[in-house]
Amino acid sequence: MINTLYLPELREMLAEGDRAGLCEFCEALHAARTAEFMEGLTAAEIWEVLQTTDAQTRVEIFRYLAEDLQEEILELGDPHSLSKLIADMPPDDRVDLLKRVDPRFVESMLPLMPAVERRDILRLTAYPEGTAGSVMTTEVARLSESLTVREALQELAQQTSDLETIYYVYLVDDENHLRGTVSARQLVTHLGKPETLLADLMERDLVTVLTTDDQEAVAEKVANYNFIAIPVVDHELHLVGIITHDDIIDVLQEEATEDAYRAGGVEPLERSYMSMPWFQLARHRAGWLAILFVAALGTTFSLKHYNQTIQQVAWLVWFLPLVISSGGNTGGQSATLIIRALTTKEITTADWWQILKRELYSGLLLGIFLGILGFAIGCLFLRLQPTHAMVIPMALVLVIVCSTQLGAMLPLLFQKAGLDPALMSNPFVSGISDITGIFIYISVAKLLIKDLW
Amino acid sequence: MINTLYLPELREMLAEGDRAGLCEFCEALHAARTAEFMEGLTAAEIWEVLQTTDAQTRVEIFRYLAEDLQEEILELGDPHSLSKLIADMPPDDRVDLLKRVDPRFVESMLPLMPAVERRDILRLTAYPEGTAGSVMTTEVARLSESLTVREALQELAQQTSDLETIYYVYLVDDENHLRGTVSARQLVTHLGKPETLLADLMERDLVTVLTTDDQEAVAEKVANYNFIAIPVVDHELHLVGIITHDDIIDVLQEEATEDAYRAGGVEPLERSYMSMPWFQLARHRAGWLAILFVAALGTTFSLKHYNQTIQQVAWLVWFLPLVISSGGNTGGQSATLIIRALTTKEITTADWWQILKRELYSGLLLGIFLGILGFAIGCLFLRLQPTHAMVIPMALVLVIVCSTQLGAMLPLLFQKAGLDPALMSNPFVSGISDITGIFIYISVAKLLIKDLW
Repeated sequence: MINTLYLPELREMLAEGDRAGLCEFCEALHAARTAEFMEGLTAAEIWEVLQTTDAQTRVEIFRYLAEDLQEEILELGDPHSLSKLIADMPPDDRVDLLKRVDPRFVESMLPLMPAVERRDILRLTAYPEGTAGSVMTTEVARLSESLTVREALQELAQQTSDLETIYYVYLVDDENHLRGTVSARQLVTHLGKPETLLADLMERDLVTVLTTDDQEAVAEKVANYNFIAIPVVDHELHLVGIITHDDIIDVLQEEATEDAYRAGGVEPLERSYMSMPWFQLARHRAGWLAILFVAALGTTFSLKHYNQTIQQVAWLVWFLPLVISSGGNTGGQSATLIIRALTTKEITTADWWQILKRELYSGLLLGIFLGILGFAIGCLFLRLQPTHAMVIPMALVLVIVCSTQLGAMLPLLFQKAGLDPALMSNPFVSGISDITGIFIYISVAKLLIKDLW
Repeated sequence: MINTLYLPELREMLAEGDRAGLCEFCEALHAARTAEFMEGLTAAEIWEVLQTTDAQTRVEIFRYLAEDLQEEILELGDPHSLSKLIADMPPDDRVDLLKRVDPRFVESMLPLMPAVERRDILRLTAYPEGTAGSVMTTEVARLSESLTVREALQELAQQTSDLETIYYVYLVDDENHLRGTVSARQLVTHLGKPETLLADLMERDLVTVLTTDDQEAVAEKVANYNFIAIPVVDHELHLVGIITHDDIIDVLQEEATEDAYRAGGVEPLERSYMSMPWFQLARHRAGWLAILFVAALGTTFSLKHYNQTIQQVAWLVWFLPLVISSGGNTGGQSATLIIRALTTKEITTADWWQILKRELYSGLLLGIFLGILGFAIGCLFLRLQPTHAMVIPMALVLVIVCSTQLGAMLPLLFQKAGLDPALMSNPFVSGISDITGIFIYISVAKLLIKDLW
């Protein structure tokens, strides 16, 4: 969505070369709002507006621009001023951006950057996507535990211009081993006793993550402990960075999107829906569709197998999609509930027996409920003999019980096997329960309808 | 999951009445970890352990206990010490808890609480679930803009023991109108110039939310602006509270769970999967299942309508589930993509024409792909005449194109009509595309197979 409120004024100021006006625009509002108001401009125009303000405001606004716009600006600006802009960005945002643009551009720009930033970029890009290392920032307030509150605050006052956050202060020894943390709140509370040593205030029970930890597990930990930031360490407990609350929110949203795609049988996209060419999008769908299609061939061959029965009792076909879709829907519900409960760590595979029982009862109740509906419709509207129509409720109960068990147990089996349980989502459970559904339905019919023998 | 590492030691200390040891256990670790280690104890045992430590640690640990345990403890503790515990909790957590327990207990305990807390509880419980008011906390650092940095820090040092967060300081006038914000970071940076007025530092471009705003919209705003906390105001811009980053993460997780349930055709649960009695769970599933069942009756009546055609060409039935499930799967994929893009505000209903085109191309390509597969299988494995087998690819292309359009357009229509687009999720799109699928499939068959005329 583009906010067009300020666009005419901005264009007019650009045409008139009103640098003072543009500078005022950049500084008057919160950077996120300024960025929002500029989204209707071209990348070149935005870059021109950003030139009018100071380096700090420029980088603040740039960080809030949409990803596409950031990339476009990098492609057209001159390398020198861009390398300055990128050097000023927070390390984690900077690396995210550089990963998205043309590697040749990155190569051409790296030599223009200060050595410290260059090394930082190279180190951070080395962490694989999805690990704690790939989302952390390396700008951390590091202090020695031998400082007093007064000294710490003085030190911080000098460091903060470079730091994304000072909500926690990390205490390290000479070799950068993490020893403890002190919160900004503790420092302020102890302003009245400025000679207190940090060592006396610090929390020694450290909750940390490793650079190699999965970002989803990190997000869970932060959510669980209500942290604003969590320190990232290596195997020797050296402090290498922190992950802040805003990155955690990004990770949670990314994971929610991925889970939603999985549940819908779509391979997670690397970019947003609209920014992806349609044939790339189709490719992300084709794989799962083909697998589901091949699985669905099972229904074709089973129906061919039961050809004679179907020919003898024509009305069996009429209820076929109803019976199998009811199985698919209940199975899909079970899979949804179990996958979500596994994701939120509410259940583990050890709970399988309890889950099996719960889903059995639910399946029975739901099956009887839909069975009564189906029986009534068969008798009243399709004028089937009640003895024949009994096939419908019996098949529904059995199909639904089987589907709830499949829907609940398959994600648990996948979890147990070390696979992502989300792979056993709706469409897959439906596909499998379609085949078992046909088998159950025709078997029940053969059992109850004497003409079929 | 219950961590049993410390359980034997805890039980032993409880049996021996070792208060000093229990007190040390409570204070040694981060409160979240202490809570985790106690989850295997009974509510009565936990309450006994908590009695050994000071009020502040007690409330910290209590906050991290699982919801069920918190409720059980409230049911058995004595009202006097419990009212003290509840008075010490952060206002937002306290109200969440009191909403979950027996209203009679709340009524019996309210008179025992200090008047300020009592009024606060009554005010917060009045906000409807899902609004900003219902998730905010009322403990805020409020200062006057006429203070200097030095005075502000002194004032904060006294206030902080009551405050959940001091990461922003909110500047209000005499009538509690919000005038601006200053971050803790700005205060620390200006320690060298302690006479600076807050009025000269404060951000005047305020980003606020109303008490009545939807919690999902609030979470998006905070995520978008990378805030740690956002002020909540009423229509006259009086500061009534703040919503902090940890509550935002809770809201995001709640909304992700709700969306996942909707996508699976389950009415969102008020409690977790395991803590809900199975028949209540079944009731949450029965409503949507019944609606889907009635919709699926459409397939029964259409198949009855086409009875003659189906009787004439037996193999048409064999491919029936395959054709309609392919439609359901592609339609479900489209719905998943569009609903997610609408949720993340990446598209709006105004983009419908572009979406329609993209889904048309995708549908054509995917239809042709699966059509070729289906044709090959029909000819090679089921030995159909190629002229007859052509029914399969033609039907697949048409069914899949229709399903992608349905899957993409129905959520957009729901959004346009002011309904939740997530209601048009996988099972619904599958249900509707089943019926259109049968119609298309049989029509194509009639057109291509001369014997059917």
